[in-house]
Amino acid sequence: MTMMMARNDPQSLKLGPGERIALVAGSGMLPKSVLQSLIAAGYRPLVVAIEGEAAIAEAPASYDLLHLPPERLGQIVPRLKGHGVTHLVLAGGVATRPPVRALRFTPGILLHLPRLLTAYARGDDGLLRAIIGYLEANGIRVVGAHEVVPELLMPEGCLGKVRPTAADEKDITAGITAARAIGRLDIGQAAVAFGGRVIALEGIEGTDGLLERTKVLRNHGRLAGKNRGVLVKCAKPGQEARADLPAIGPQTVRDAHDAGLSGIATEAERSFILDGAEAVALADHHGLFLLGFNGGRQ
Amino acid sequence: MTMMMARNDPQSLKLGPGERIALVAGSGMLPKSVLQSLIAAGYRPLVVAIEGEAAIAEAPASYDLLHLPPERLGQIVPRLKGHGVTHLVLAGGVATRPPVRALRFTPGILLHLPRLLTAYARGDDGLLRAIIGYLEANGIRVVGAHEVVPELLMPEGCLGKVRPTAADEKDITAGITAARAIGRLDIGQAAVAFGGRVIALEGIEGTDGLLERTKVLRNHGRLAGKNRGVLVKCAKPGQEARADLPAIGPQTVRDAHDAGLSGIATEAERSFILDGAEAVALADHHGLFLLGFNGGRQ
Repeated sequence: MTMMMARNDPQSLKLGPGERIALVAGSGMLPKSVLQSLIAAGYRPLVVAIEGEAAIAEAPASYDLLHLPPERLGQIVPRLKGHGVTHLVLAGGVATRPPVRALRFTPGILLHLPRLLTAYARGDDGLLRAIIGYLEANGIRVVGAHEVVPELLMPEGCLGKVRPTAADEKDITAGITAARAIGRLDIGQAAVAFGGRVIALEGIEGTDGLLERTKVLRNHGRLAGKNRGVLVKCAKPGQEARADLPAIGPQTVRDAHDAGLSGIATEAERSFILDGAEAVALADHHGLFLLGFNGGRQ
Repeated sequence: MTMMMARNDPQSLKLGPGERIALVAGSGMLPKSVLQSLIAAGYRPLVVAIEGEAAIAEAPASYDLLHLPPERLGQIVPRLKGHGVTHLVLAGGVATRPPVRALRFTPGILLHLPRLLTAYARGDDGLLRAIIGYLEANGIRVVGAHEVVPELLMPEGCLGKVRPTAADEKDITAGITAARAIGRLDIGQAAVAFGGRVIALEGIEGTDGLLERTKVLRNHGRLAGKNRGVLVKCAKPGQEARADLPAIGPQTVRDAHDAGLSGIATEAERSFILDGAEAVALADHHGLFLLGFNGGRQ
């Protein structure tokens, strides 16, 4: 087990003979993109769909499919080994947090259990780090989704035709500060700013819930005036890039438009843009900007 | 104009002959409590009800009533002077943020305008600080609600019969950290923690919106298990105590219970408990704790 794979060389995922990759699929559209990319590269992945989270179609022809309730993630290694899995990619969110007493583990995980439970108490990202450590200690190499689908990483600058205004820039700055602050506490990744001020923060309801709330606030006249507001998504500072980088896509653009926002800003190279052509076309159509900001931006 | 009134001597509000106090009433139940206390002390206050925020009954017999849209706060001084007002207390929230171009000011405020507009862009608390400075520069002494109704300040320790469990204590600690972090950014004052982790943060929707969201998350099975969760409210670090200290009351207890929480923790001496007897009786009835934590708690 080595970690020689350079994080900055996203082209480096090449499976050798006798190697097989599994995709642990959580919520959102990222798992589907990763799956398509793996199939297009000629692999036959094992998809582990986390129940209640993953939206992976049944009846696969070009991949194998296992369903796993989240409380059984601690029993995953023998099942992966049974399918000859040597590599694994985590994609999508896992918001469900089963009660600790419901968690199931294999005996092999017992050594790691105290660390996993501590991480579990700490939050999502700690848990994912611990799971990655546990998988790698068991000889399964964990690769990041950004290594499988580097072409989906958000580039720096504006996609599409629309540029942020000076007022939008103030919202972006306020949103970045807030999104990083809550990311540091492992609470969420997203903030909505309006009139230079953050008005809503993401918790476990996710970005769709955050935008729905923004829409309700606007419809109730709580966001008055010409200002439109901005959605900002940041990777948590120090986030394990192999775990859960933020993602946006066409639905995010639709939801942001419905919430009356003027655009979306996410961290360049540390977030995904899914179905990018459709997302950009929609953003252009609705007059929204899509900005990838430099991770060094304050 | 002096600021000799000791902040730590809440008994010091005594109006002399020829002095009159006005109450600028925002949202929530605090303005009503402040009003009742002023009337009980034998004063006849002028109530300035902020339109869209204040819930002050019409047809007053023991006070005078003015309605003021929030965008006209900058025209308040001549109206106060016209009513002989020498003292003013701010109570309740002002969530409405009219667009800057709608703001109306008297010529007398022009000197303060740049500072007010900067504060306005910065957020609520900055705006309130600036308004306080503007009023005091115009010879109106601004007192804190905690000086008018010191008996409503949350004491340290548990009110009622229920005590937080060890699991609740972890939620309280996580909630305090998060509520302070968003307070420092002037975003909100409250957080809900569950299973040792913050799951929702207050934005401009307010605490009732935060608890409603928590209820929805719970009803959708996003908060599973025996853990119940805790609401934490903190004064913003460095908050101007005369502006908008957090408050809880019977409705907060009802909403927290509806959201399935096990209790409420607020900062002792830096938050209000309104209709305390009813709030405690309700909390006891529903099995919720009501904790005033020491401001030095980490």
